[in-house]
Amino acid sequence: MAMPKGPQPFPRAEYTRRLSAVKLEMERRETDVLMVTNPSNITYLTGYTAKSGYVPQALVVSLKEDEPTFITRRMDAPAAVHQMFMDSTQIIGYSENLVGNPEMDGFDAVLDFINDLNLARGRLGLEAKSLSAQTVQKIKSKLPDATVVDFSNCVTWIRLIKSDLEIEVMKEAAAITDAGMLRAKEIIRPGVRESDAAAEIIATLVRGINGKPGTYLPGFFLCASPRSATAHIPWSEDVFRNGSQINLEFGGQRHGYVSALMRTFSIGKPSDRLRRIHEAEVAGLEAALATAKPGASCGDVAAAFNSTFKKHGFVKESRCGYAIGIDWLEPTASLKEGDPTVLQPNMTFHLMLGNWVDEDFGYVISETFRVTDRDAEAFSNLPRVIFEI
Amino acid sequence: MAMPKGPQPFPRAEYTRRLSAVKLEMERRETDVLMVTNPSNITYLTGYTAKSGYVPQALVVSLKEDEPTFITRRMDAPAAVHQMFMDSTQIIGYSENLVGNPEMDGFDAVLDFINDLNLARGRLGLEAKSLSAQTVQKIKSKLPDATVVDFSNCVTWIRLIKSDLEIEVMKEAAAITDAGMLRAKEIIRPGVRESDAAAEIIATLVRGINGKPGTYLPGFFLCASPRSATAHIPWSEDVFRNGSQINLEFGGQRHGYVSALMRTFSIGKPSDRLRRIHEAEVAGLEAALATAKPGASCGDVAAAFNSTFKKHGFVKESRCGYAIGIDWLEPTASLKEGDPTVLQPNMTFHLMLGNWVDEDFGYVISETFRVTDRDAEAFSNLPRVIFEI
Repeated sequence: MAMPKGPQPFPRAEYTRRLSAVKLEMERRETDVLMVTNPSNITYLTGYTAKSGYVPQALVVSLKEDEPTFITRRMDAPAAVHQMFMDSTQIIGYSENLVGNPEMDGFDAVLDFINDLNLARGRLGLEAKSLSAQTVQKIKSKLPDATVVDFSNCVTWIRLIKSDLEIEVMKEAAAITDAGMLRAKEIIRPGVRESDAAAEIIATLVRGINGKPGTYLPGFFLCASPRSATAHIPWSEDVFRNGSQINLEFGGQRHGYVSALMRTFSIGKPSDRLRRIHEAEVAGLEAALATAKPGASCGDVAAAFNSTFKKHGFVKESRCGYAIGIDWLEPTASLKEGDPTVLQPNMTFHLMLGNWVDEDFGYVISETFRVTDRDAEAFSNLPRVIFEI
Repeated sequence: MAMPKGPQPFPRAEYTRRLSAVKLEMERRETDVLMVTNPSNITYLTGYTAKSGYVPQALVVSLKEDEPTFITRRMDAPAAVHQMFMDSTQIIGYSENLVGNPEMDGFDAVLDFINDLNLARGRLGLEAKSLSAQTVQKIKSKLPDATVVDFSNCVTWIRLIKSDLEIEVMKEAAAITDAGMLRAKEIIRPGVRESDAAAEIIATLVRGINGKPGTYLPGFFLCASPRSATAHIPWSEDVFRNGSQINLEFGGQRHGYVSALMRTFSIGKPSDRLRRIHEAEVAGLEAALATAKPGASCGDVAAAFNSTFKKHGFVKESRCGYAIGIDWLEPTASLKEGDPTVLQPNMTFHLMLGNWVDEDFGYVISETFRVTDRDAEAFSNLPRVIFEI
């Protein structure tokens, strides 16, 4: 019996639209075949979210073919048949001989497939930035007549402007994120262990809300006193105490899409230091959101934050955020002074205003937003406050 | 005020022992400086488990220096000070200018540091297999006089034999894994949504047991009918039904170390097909464990499984497992026919007997075990049964 197709998060037309944009770029760059290896780009072009990317796999997009072909480890082919929008004939499982084999790996199967396309003499697009030097070497030696064209980040840039359908999914993710933050407000108490609070919040993010579950483990960071100056510690074994500050950053996920959010919690009255930076950050955040509209640049948004923040006597060293979508960060446009990317409707960003001031003090707040026809729309419905416990 | 050191999972002597083994290999290969970039290897050599590896960072081990130096993004330096065993002077935060910058990245800071060591004319070890072609190119152009020596997987091979302290931590992780599987047995019921069950199990894995919390999000896969033939779908939005089969694979985590486990669940009486493969798999599993002792090879263990399994009329295409430790899979020794690695005490493996037979049917069972002085010790205390609900 064949593996049934699962429910697709998007209609077929959405995927063909995305593929057309990629093929247009391939045509512009006279590239016959593109080998997509970035897992988030594979999700974007097919709907596949299974976690098989720790071994080689590739989505091969050919100008001559309507649907792309996915070459993956044989044990992962059924998941691809189930999740990908394409016909099951477009999914090829490679032999287990290529796993844990010091001589060969799954890229050998991918390159054999590309060779059989008889396009090896043409131009082959690679996401070279995320391929190992060893793999690039293998490609050059197995396809010596192909001209390699660097498509690093090309599909990722196409992802920058979301469709209305993608925005809907990101809003579902945002509702999950808000539910998690409200659960944090209930569970964070003096005497509670950080890991126990994390367990409750993460369970909320997996369970989801409004009948829409989270679809994967969320990104998750709970950095509490004395670690409020850290950004990427998931949680510790300490218990919360009176006077503890807790910096939370996480994002619910729907079908790969993430809506991220940061809020700072204080058990007991926030210190003056914390309150002062909070006021400055919120003023900066609002200035940034007021600037984010079609025609403004990413750099303008960062400049609006920075100048307002400076008026309050503060500076933030790190950038003010980045494009967000599938699997959190999109390494394309930055909300950073000087970034020339011009905002267009349905671009989505994580306006990430975490500020790790000193070795003993940090503060976080953020909003995930989309650019609308005329302004910016934040996805979260939560107030921009220090949550006092 | 400076960031305080957090509680270390291992004493200093454990880290210096690990570093000595790495330095011995560096000496053998006449390599002055090693740039460790694999995040699991950084965890192994320092205790660092914060999740900053999505931007460039490196641990630089020099034969001339007692302690290694960690170069990371400035916002992540406090977490490194908190978690790493080294003196805080060994941690260098690089400027935010190098983030989201199309011209330069954190590897420029790492290479500047290596250049300042005045060792650039000597031999530089790289984990080239996990570096992008672009980064290797940058290294060659910034350190043109250095001879690059490929240390891919070298530290990973050193990790293969665990210390007694590491085994203790893996057993703590295994207790968490068992708690998660027992929670699955309580929560999986007809009418329950897969995501709701996942939420409960994952919360258990984060909360931990015996006063020892999980320290990170677990690897987690719940592949239920009609997806029992898939291996790496986290969960779906379906509800369990009478007759559903559920294949679970996950691992609790302690300080980076994972103990993985697979079990198959059946709501209602297992089908004959399921029961037959289960009996064959358990017989094969027991034959494999009986073979796993010092002096046998990894290939012998796989052959013991395969020949027993074949006697029952089955074949398994994929390998029978792999070395396990920090962040799950260690890409070194495989439990695969022909793998010559000779078992030694305190090697640890995931004897992974998942078998995705057909597009409509798969079955899973596994054990994480260590090699002892005379035999094999499985970490889980759970029975090797189909869990009937």
